[in-house]
Amino acid sequence: MNVFLIGANGQVGKHIVRILKESKEHTLKAMVRSEEQAASLKEDGVTAVVANLEGSVDELATAMEGSDAVVFSAGSGGKTGPDKTLLVDLDGAVKSMEAAQKAGIERYVMVSAHQAHNRDSWKDSPIKPYMVAKHYADKILVESGLNYTIVRPGGLENDPGTGKVKASENLERGNIPREDVARTVVTSLAEENAYRRSFDLIAGELEIADALKQI
Amino acid sequence: MNVFLIGANGQVGKHIVRILKESKEHTLKAMVRSEEQAASLKEDGVTAVVANLEGSVDELATAMEGSDAVVFSAGSGGKTGPDKTLLVDLDGAVKSMEAAQKAGIERYVMVSAHQAHNRDSWKDSPIKPYMVAKHYADKILVESGLNYTIVRPGGLENDPGTGKVKASENLERGNIPREDVARTVVTSLAEENAYRRSFDLIAGELEIADALKQI
Repeated sequence: MNVFLIGANGQVGKHIVRILKESKEHTLKAMVRSEEQAASLKEDGVTAVVANLEGSVDELATAMEGSDAVVFSAGSGGKTGPDKTLLVDLDGAVKSMEAAQKAGIERYVMVSAHQAHNRDSWKDSPIKPYMVAKHYADKILVESGLNYTIVRPGGLENDPGTGKVKASENLERGNIPREDVARTVVTSLAEENAYRRSFDLIAGELEIADALKQI
Repeated sequence: MNVFLIGANGQVGKHIVRILKESKEHTLKAMVRSEEQAASLKEDGVTAVVANLEGSVDELATAMEGSDAVVFSAGSGGKTGPDKTLLVDLDGAVKSMEAAQKAGIERYVMVSAHQAHNRDSWKDSPIKPYMVAKHYADKILVESGLNYTIVRPGGLENDPGTGKVKASENLERGNIPREDVARTVVTSLAEENAYRRSFDLIAGELEIADALKQI
């Protein structure tokens, strides 16, 4: 697949870039916000395109042309306020879904957050506005008609990945290395059992490919 | 109809309360956030119930029991930050839709904002996060299966109403007295031509009842 990655400069996104670069099944086009980021990726041999989630759907659709799948791994980040949460994590995400449809792309993999579908789980969360944004972006993705996979990882760690995870519709709270989230996203791209499915993801005992077959 | 009003203490909401009190076709249950607000409404002869849009869907559904229609006229207000915009204008609104469905209520009238459906119209707006929240609340209402009407008024004024409006799917920017927004909301409740319709609303030349028949 030709994969269009939104959020290539993020902490999970950088792992996805590296894994896709090494992949024999997939090619990568990485979307970044600045020419500097694009130049740096190009030096590493990565195809990069400059576009902005705060721009128009048309701009995003043009950037996506020729891709077979969109991976959304962008996030407004912990340092920005809830206004950016609304503009990036919600509106930006939904614009990228509309752009995918406009560009004729059917496959869409979203990096979401543990239990984002379950309002009760985050009613007292300190990042509740972020969870609200992820909740509705996911909800709109499910209803979009796209062939989606929604990956909802637990607490993100920088430890090296183990390649072993637990994936299921509802899981207890747990942590997971960012590298394993990235591997799960890439493995899910062509895994039919992950089509039109949403699942929580934490560190576990199963190889990623096996875990995805048993969601 | 037994009308359940969310946002009874707001600036448009207070007009809706007064109009429904005088109505012969409808009865009113007003939802407010505090016992003090409820006591004050009860002194005026209005049935009031205390509930919170930041509470649970079940709490809202219980408060709505016995009603035939929900009117959503709440807003986080200009003084609060975008976190409240996410929690009230988006998540609170959608919770009230889910609560209506849980309580077996089919009719739902939303007070939205001029051109909220049209992302291009607010891309440079100073209240863009608010518009994002309204956009997605409206979008989810349209897809909810409820029998909705979405009223999208232009710039809200405190002048007395004239009873004359312009209502159409897409209108130029314009202003409208809050009292006329409230009258339009109440008139739309039983107007079948407004069922499953969304429209912009500004001051105009037609009687409200006639304008609603010609959307």
